[in-house]
Amino acid sequence: MDDKFIDAVVQQVMSKVGGGSNGGSTGGAAMQNPGMTEFVGTAIGDTIGMVIANLDPDLHEKIGIDKKFRSIGILSARTGAGPQIMAADEAVKATNTEIVKIELPRDTKGGAGHGSLILFGSEEVSDARRAIEVALKELDRTFGDVYANDAGHTELQYTARASQACEKAFGTPIGRAFGLIVGAPAGIGVLMIDAAVKTADVDLIGFLSPSGGLSLTNEVVGTVSGDAGAVRQAIITAREVGNRLLGSMGAEPKSLGVPYI
Amino acid sequence: MDDKFIDAVVQQVMSKVGGGSNGGSTGGAAMQNPGMTEFVGTAIGDTIGMVIANLDPDLHEKIGIDKKFRSIGILSARTGAGPQIMAADEAVKATNTEIVKIELPRDTKGGAGHGSLILFGSEEVSDARRAIEVALKELDRTFGDVYANDAGHTELQYTARASQACEKAFGTPIGRAFGLIVGAPAGIGVLMIDAAVKTADVDLIGFLSPSGGLSLTNEVVGTVSGDAGAVRQAIITAREVGNRLLGSMGAEPKSLGVPYI
Amino acid sequence: MDDKFIDAVVQQVMSKVGGGSNGGSTGGAAMQNPGMTEFVGTAIGDTIGMVIANLDPDLHEKIGIDKKFRSIGILSARTGAGPQIMAADEAVKATNTEIVKIELPRDTKGGAGHGSLILFGSEEVSDARRAIEVALKELDRTFGDVYANDAGHTELQYTARASQACEKAFGTPIGRAFGLIVGAPAGIGVLMIDAAVKTADVDLIGFLSPSGGLSLTNEVVGTVSGDAGAVRQAIITAREVGNRLLGSMGAEPKSLGVPYI
Repeated sequence: MDDKFIDAVVQQVMSKVGGGSNGGSTGGAAMQNPGMTEFVGTAIGDTIGMVIANLDPDLHEKIGIDKKFRSIGILSARTGAGPQIMAADEAVKATNTEIVKIELPRDTKGGAGHGSLILFGSEEVSDARRAIEVALKELDRTFGDVYANDAGHTELQYTARASQACEKAFGTPIGRAFGLIVGAPAGIGVLMIDAAVKTADVDLIGFLSPSGGLSLTNEVVGTVSGDAGAVRQAIITAREVGNRLLGSMGAEPKSLGVPYI
Repeated sequence: MDDKFIDAVVQQVMSKVGGGSNGGSTGGAAMQNPGMTEFVGTAIGDTIGMVIANLDPDLHEKIGIDKKFRSIGILSARTGAGPQIMAADEAVKATNTEIVKIELPRDTKGGAGHGSLILFGSEEVSDARRAIEVALKELDRTFGDVYANDAGHTELQYTARASQACEKAFGTPIGRAFGLIVGAPAGIGVLMIDAAVKTADVDLIGFLSPSGGLSLTNEVVGTVSGDAGAVRQAIITAREVGNRLLGSMGAEPKSLGVPYI
Repeated sequence: MDDKFIDAVVQQVMSKVGGGSNGGSTGGAAMQNPGMTEFVGTAIGDTIGMVIANLDPDLHEKIGIDKKFRSIGILSARTGAGPQIMAADEAVKATNTEIVKIELPRDTKGGAGHGSLILFGSEEVSDARRAIEVALKELDRTFGDVYANDAGHTELQYTARASQACEKAFGTPIGRAFGLIVGAPAGIGVLMIDAAVKTADVDLIGFLSPSGGLSLTNEVVGTVSGDAGAVRQAIITAREVGNRLLGSMGAEPKSLGVPYI
């Protein structure tokens, strides 16, 4: 009985504390509508989605968005960059919008990685709203291959056909299969990438390190392109290697959603 | 009884854990004097105030401070940049000192924002000490319109007459009314600014984003200037919008002090 | 009995939560071997050590390592830069390896400081492995003069003879005595350095601040060189000053290991 009681207390405390020291903190996806037309919804990773129908002209100019976009969609998160970028990639494919800005703060609420701020531009607010709705929904999937324990996290992403968000964030060739490999602490990412490119015939198109392309996160990131089957195989190998190494530093890494790759 | 007991445990743990995952962690303002003449005091936000009467010449040169300032005052905090800058602004008005350095680390103890390091220069150490005393005291007020929950924070600042700290940090015109708008996660700041500039006839003088002027924080910051009444109205609107949006992501945002605007 | 019980619960929760808001979070040094030849070990500070015998050629080029190094050793940590750099310095002295990369993410799991990613190059994997083994072992010592409480941390390092890791990270003259002084929040570092250089005849070779040489950490760092006795004296003075100031902000700062200076 004592054990159960302790578990109950621990659980209650952990839920209050949230993922403070955890790379994969997902926050609470509260769904209280604030009663504003600008609000679209929230999702995993302390992500909030919003729209502005007619952006103030001075603000429009200061942000530096193309004049043709009267409306913007905003996807903003405390935890996660890869999941939000991949979700935005699907949203761009599905709607009449463009990605006009991607900024990656150093965040994850004390974890090792990025948060994200992604802006969509559109001529009609209905398009921006639809893009945000699609992106918020996709996050359930794109967090599926994020794994975390107290020591760090790994992240894998895969798409058979990259679109504009991947291009803008990673310089990915549009229309080709694309894979993203992330390890934290950073050294784990080096081994994940090495194993991935040795296991399958893929092009290593990018290598990003804390001060070499990332926002001082404790990550190493690799991006691969090529034949769809080869990219998928490379990603699966990276996942196996990364989670074994991360597991040596703490508990078994847990998926933050349902693995999709 | 079990519930009370759990509450007691949770409270004890929370006090140990501190605001790890909280944008508005305020730390403990312990007042144990370390028995050093250099120590002035501590305040909310894990802020410490200190002075050096005769800065070592080599260190003086390495920091890059004007030769005429023999003494420096130091205001250093884990949590908060806006509150400390506004407090320093009052301190500069009230004393014979100048702001010689403002640096904004990425901190807030796992939260979404900045810490701060502000140096005052003076010819007499008594002036530097007085400036630090004023600034520490002002922090109780300037944290009044910082609101936080587990998902992020909002911050509003207002002064009828900006001085040198605001100018150095934000390029604010000296002597004019000035307002500061901060939202975290960053996307919330975009909506706060948009609402603020639409609601009142103010000049949007600055728009800062995670990698566009901020220290990779998960914030968007807007600065406004103009007629005092209009600036105040803009700030109040931004506060209303920001706290409603932030509240949709978690608990109702709580002020870290007593609202002053 | 209630008190003991509460303590047990608190302890269990704290161990789960880790050092979320703590500058000196040391993580768990789990020693579960993941069954990979690349894995060398783990240590304090959520540090992991690994090797790659034959780095993939594309990855080799992307990382930008000299062609002559077929093998690399990887020392990667969530918490700590100074301890890992000093440990790597000893590892380089003891083995036939070179430091080929040092990157310092903004990390410490919500604390005020850096994590680290250090790569060793070698022609034979046995040398890289030996370097990582030495470095992991040295960390027990080099964390000895890291002190932390909830408000921040101080760090002191000393070597009678600096080698290549110190040179690469701090521009230290090789072969001379070297001391490292770190205070967080940043303002504390200013007073530590001032006291250190006033107390002993040492050269202040470097002054680093959050946006002036550091990775936006909430630290000020000073590096000193000179006669071994003088450097040691300067470091001891800095430690005394730093820990008294840090103690004024919270609990008495605790060493994360066994002090060695």
